[in-house]
Amino acid sequence: MDNSKDTYHVTLKPSGKRIEIVPGTLVSDAIDQAGLELNLPCGGQGRCGRCKVVVEEGQVKRRSISRLSRTELEQGYALACQAVLESDLTVFIPPQEVILRALPSEKEARKVITLPVECDWRKNPVRSFFLEIEPPSLADNTTDFERLQRELARQHGIRGLVADLPVIKKLGRTMRDANWRVTAVLDMGDWASPDGPPRLIDLRAGDRTGSSWAVAVDIGTTSNVVYLVDLLTSQVVDTAAEYNAQISCGEDVISRIIYATKQEGGLDHLQRLVVQTINGRIEELVERNGIDPTEIDKMTVAGNPTMIHLFLGLWPESIRLEPYVPTVNHPLPVKARELGLHINPEATVDCLPGVGAYVGADTTAGVLGSLMYQTEELTLFIDVGTNGEIVLGNNDWLLSCACSAGPAFEGAGVHSGMRATIGAIEEVWINTKTYEPTYRVIGDVPPRGICGSGMISLLAEMFITGVIDKGGRINQSLDTPRVRIGEHGPEYVIAWAEETQCPTSNVKRQTSNVKRQTSNHALSVAEGVKRGAQDVVITEVDIANLIRAKAAFYAGFSVLTRSVGLQLAEVEQVLIGGAFGQYINVEKAIQIGLLPDMPWERFKFLGNTSALGAYTALLCPDMRQEVVDIASKMTYLELSADNTFMDEFTKALFLPHTDLASFPSVVRLL
Amino acid sequence: MDNSKDTYHVTLKPSGKRIEIVPGTLVSDAIDQAGLELNLPCGGQGRCGRCKVVVEEGQVKRRSISRLSRTELEQGYALACQAVLESDLTVFIPPQEVILRALPSEKEARKVITLPVECDWRKNPVRSFFLEIEPPSLADNTTDFERLQRELARQHGIRGLVADLPVIKKLGRTMRDANWRVTAVLDMGDWASPDGPPRLIDLRAGDRTGSSWAVAVDIGTTSNVVYLVDLLTSQVVDTAAEYNAQISCGEDVISRIIYATKQEGGLDHLQRLVVQTINGRIEELVERNGIDPTEIDKMTVAGNPTMIHLFLGLWPESIRLEPYVPTVNHPLPVKARELGLHINPEATVDCLPGVGAYVGADTTAGVLGSLMYQTEELTLFIDVGTNGEIVLGNNDWLLSCACSAGPAFEGAGVHSGMRATIGAIEEVWINTKTYEPTYRVIGDVPPRGICGSGMISLLAEMFITGVIDKGGRINQSLDTPRVRIGEHGPEYVIAWAEETQCPTSNVKRQTSNVKRQTSNHALSVAEGVKRGAQDVVITEVDIANLIRAKAAFYAGFSVLTRSVGLQLAEVEQVLIGGAFGQYINVEKAIQIGLLPDMPWERFKFLGNTSALGAYTALLCPDMRQEVVDIASKMTYLELSADNTFMDEFTKALFLPHTDLASFPSVVRLL
Repeated sequence: MDNSKDTYHVTLKPSGKRIEIVPGTLVSDAIDQAGLELNLPCGGQGRCGRCKVVVEEGQVKRRSISRLSRTELEQGYALACQAVLESDLTVFIPPQEVILRALPSEKEARKVITLPVECDWRKNPVRSFFLEIEPPSLADNTTDFERLQRELARQHGIRGLVADLPVIKKLGRTMRDANWRVTAVLDMGDWASPDGPPRLIDLRAGDRTGSSWAVAVDIGTTSNVVYLVDLLTSQVVDTAAEYNAQISCGEDVISRIIYATKQEGGLDHLQRLVVQTINGRIEELVERNGIDPTEIDKMTVAGNPTMIHLFLGLWPESIRLEPYVPTVNHPLPVKARELGLHINPEATVDCLPGVGAYVGADTTAGVLGSLMYQTEELTLFIDVGTNGEIVLGNNDWLLSCACSAGPAFEGAGVHSGMRATIGAIEEVWINTKTYEPTYRVIGDVPPRGICGSGMISLLAEMFITGVIDKGGRINQSLDTPRVRIGEHGPEYVIAWAEETQCPTSNVKRQTSNVKRQTSNHALSVAEGVKRGAQDVVITEVDIANLIRAKAAFYAGFSVLTRSVGLQLAEVEQVLIGGAFGQYINVEKAIQIGLLPDMPWERFKFLGNTSALGAYTALLCPDMRQEVVDIASKMTYLELSADNTFMDEFTKALFLPHTDLASFPSVVRLL
Repeated sequence: MDNSKDTYHVTLKPSGKRIEIVPGTLVSDAIDQAGLELNLPCGGQGRCGRCKVVVEEGQVKRRSISRLSRTELEQGYALACQAVLESDLTVFIPPQEVILRALPSEKEARKVITLPVECDWRKNPVRSFFLEIEPPSLADNTTDFERLQRELARQHGIRGLVADLPVIKKLGRTMRDANWRVTAVLDMGDWASPDGPPRLIDLRAGDRTGSSWAVAVDIGTTSNVVYLVDLLTSQVVDTAAEYNAQISCGEDVISRIIYATKQEGGLDHLQRLVVQTINGRIEELVERNGIDPTEIDKMTVAGNPTMIHLFLGLWPESIRLEPYVPTVNHPLPVKARELGLHINPEATVDCLPGVGAYVGADTTAGVLGSLMYQTEELTLFIDVGTNGEIVLGNNDWLLSCACSAGPAFEGAGVHSGMRATIGAIEEVWINTKTYEPTYRVIGDVPPRGICGSGMISLLAEMFITGVIDKGGRINQSLDTPRVRIGEHGPEYVIAWAEETQCPTSNVKRQTSNVKRQTSNHALSVAEGVKRGAQDVVITEVDIANLIRAKAAFYAGFSVLTRSVGLQLAEVEQVLIGGAFGQYINVEKAIQIGLLPDMPWERFKFLGNTSALGAYTALLCPDMRQEVVDIASKMTYLELSADNTFMDEFTKALFLPHTDLASFPSVVRLL
């Protein structure tokens, strides 16, 4: 240690880059200053353990070693976000996970998305009017804008037209270049001013009334989805999806908020990242459909409150801190140009209203898209995502809460966990006698890890076959090499290291529907590169994480139903939304107590209800108003402020539950 | 000439800069490409003759030599904007005029500006409300924005608050940093939406209701004026004025339009220049008065249509081309941030409405400021500027026209002309026997040229003493060395070269109320530096220019009065606005036929009526509406489309006029 020096020399391998750094700097900041990229999934809190680096020479102070094993420490591993420079240093940065990811399957792409409800979509506020205008003369020298106002009134009965400066700027040249034959594109008024005045959002040369486009966007913490909507037919003509580029700055909303508020320029960076992701999808859609992006004249957005805040660039800190208050639940409409979106710069961008800090526009849109607000049946709506939202109610009342299930089901915080991409184990069966597993892998390649649906399946099988007990403890006395004591304690081996080996050609660059994307996750893979292939395992610690996640959901159901004096058994239907929700096996989910035990036919999988709701609200002003009504009608229960939640959560920390009477089908099986 | 070469070497003196330029390039473009500055007052049309350079070596093709004398041609002079490179070149760029300019005199600065009319200025739309807000809690977790809305309604009865994204972005932190004691600054609605909704334009920490600021701006073609207004007292607390920085790109509106539309990036450049000028004045005002510029919460702007278009960045070309149609007469309000103004970025910037291509917000504001729309007397309102606007009428009707008097009275297009700054001859008397002149110079220094009021005075004296005849021809037979044939034909010497010599210390850097500013004008002075001092003269060509200018005004009066079946003599009062107007000597102006011959007491000089009107409209919503009524009530007569104008103009091309019966006082004098 050489405290007398002003700066230290840091060499970063494998790039070989050398920089000078002042003492006391974090290794992650040094890497950043060197212009190299290192993702910090948990936002630099030392929670996720994904920014591991190897200190080959020199000295660092490790603020936290909680995510490092003994072996890793011996090998010189440190968390870059927790390691403070104390001397000249040589640091090796292992490659972070490279995800080979499947885009929406063909089956999904072919799925026709339709409006979930009959509504008067021809009343959508974007209208185009073709005008043939008498050119000005000395006898009639009305100005360009006043002439346009006059002709819109004369020819189409539209009065009181207004326009923002950028449109006024282009009027004169457009009208003359088009020889006074123009299409005026108007936004007739959004929810904030439903009776106008009509706003001129573009003036286009010639008759362009034959096409009219808009997009509905769902900004998920993990995935962003864009629907391209033909406003003349109401059809979704194409969809595009991509991981939210913000993932590199944190995997859950809390990590993102920390990144936004603690990192210099963090909020702006996150805002740019999500806009980048959306712009990329729009580019994809307009190219595929031969559309000019500036002809997209409206955008409606759903997402959880944190996602909406980050999209708009609103300071999100108060969402994270008690008493959990967003800046705004119902943002006023903004213009595309204000956010850097590559569509018509004057297009209205309308973010749907949320209800509270963790129940947002994704939920209100989901309730709209699921139509639960129209039914008389007592309905439980679950949006299963990185954050879970639950709504209980019917056409009369709606009660909601959010449970911070955490990203365990998305593959984070689990040793061999990964997202539902190529190489992920998605279903597991365990032989009741030999305890040998068989499994199915996404993309039919050797397994690289296990994803959420795989974990539910695995957990259920382990429980049913007795590999684990109801507390999630692994039975050490079983006669199988699959059960052992690993570095992190007791674990079960799902796949041996040799099973994970494969000719790289198999998974590499499956051109058309596979894309490369750097991510943050599972250093296990990266480590494999350096230290050789590893077994795919599930540890008792992982199991405890998963049980906490499922318990959070179930406790949410319980508290909601009890708070209105009802029993879960009285629920007449369970609607499951969210992208991940689509792949849940109901039987297995009931077996571990993630879903309540009721006849399978009561469960309905609705897919991306958030995007569906955004699409509906985009098209139909009545439905847009309906979302407002849903939001104002919905009571928000803050679980952290509810004193029964902890009881319910604790009761649910068993497989399937402390109260076995609530899980008769599981009791029968055992 | 060497046509075979791809590029020519151009050396620019005195800097010595060398660049390579492709054949066929204009010398002015070459100078621009070299990164040197050369002002093109007429926008590069070869009209003004101010971009003269000396071709010391090499060959250029002179497209126009109309502004060059024989001697100058012999000396190698060329107009940079009209000279095409035909060989390697060495060009000397003489210094363009450096103006030593007097800021508003102390007398003027001490003048108290008051509202010209009683009006309810407390209804001005900017309002501040102090709020003490209960912080959020788990029991009351309403969002920040909805909480603010609720408290404004509860504590002050303000409902339906809206806000733009930049304000929403700062809510959360401001409220918490201020410990929930904040001042909400609202714009309660402009003319475009007089009934709101109220718009939150800032949220400030603590109780800031004790101050409230706004600015009224007059954007003249030549000068820009800013009034700092205290909204709590209605007082103009300070004023600042400066030349419009656009002057370097053209001295009149036509030259500016040409610059904006023909030069690459010209419009943006002009927009930035005028905003720079205004920002500079605001900086001056806030420094002098200890105000934070972001506390200026509103701006009202008057100016002619071209100035308003350039300020907003609107394409001005159609103003210049028949049928002379602006993009818009009544621009919708914009936000300060949209224009790059350094005040509260959310402040509403309200441009007052105009009437036609050359009768703009300066005229409607002038009519408001002059109160002519309230009087029963038949009134002639004249705004004398680079462009002249005339309004005839009373409280019943208003008829307006514009006459392109041209910049002669501003000193351009006149051999020894200059603006009304230090060193300008502002008054002249000629001895009736010796024809020797005496004169008064602004700043009491040796004369450098002659300004507008000096020219009116000179012209009148020459006419009365018989130095010129009624056609403006100089009497060659007079026995005086003052009359001679110069390079441009017959001329009269006002001041000999030796009178113009002075120790530079006299005018140089008169620190406190004199500023240096580069300009474009009067190469005569620059030439003086190179070729020795010159006589200050007026040529027959100059006189013809001045007569055309005054004839344009007078023809305007005649056409306006005749078009409503009246006689000029029936006009009961003549109100003269405009900065230049203040310095006109009525007697002399009548003698040359610039003003109609009527008792002097009918003339009233009102000063800057345009700024006064902007100030009034800024403060009083009723008066703001009055400007709209004035604009809509005002008939615009396009003189170029009026077939009697040419007749009237021709008749006025004499001193004082063909119709001597209309000038009895002048006849008596002769």
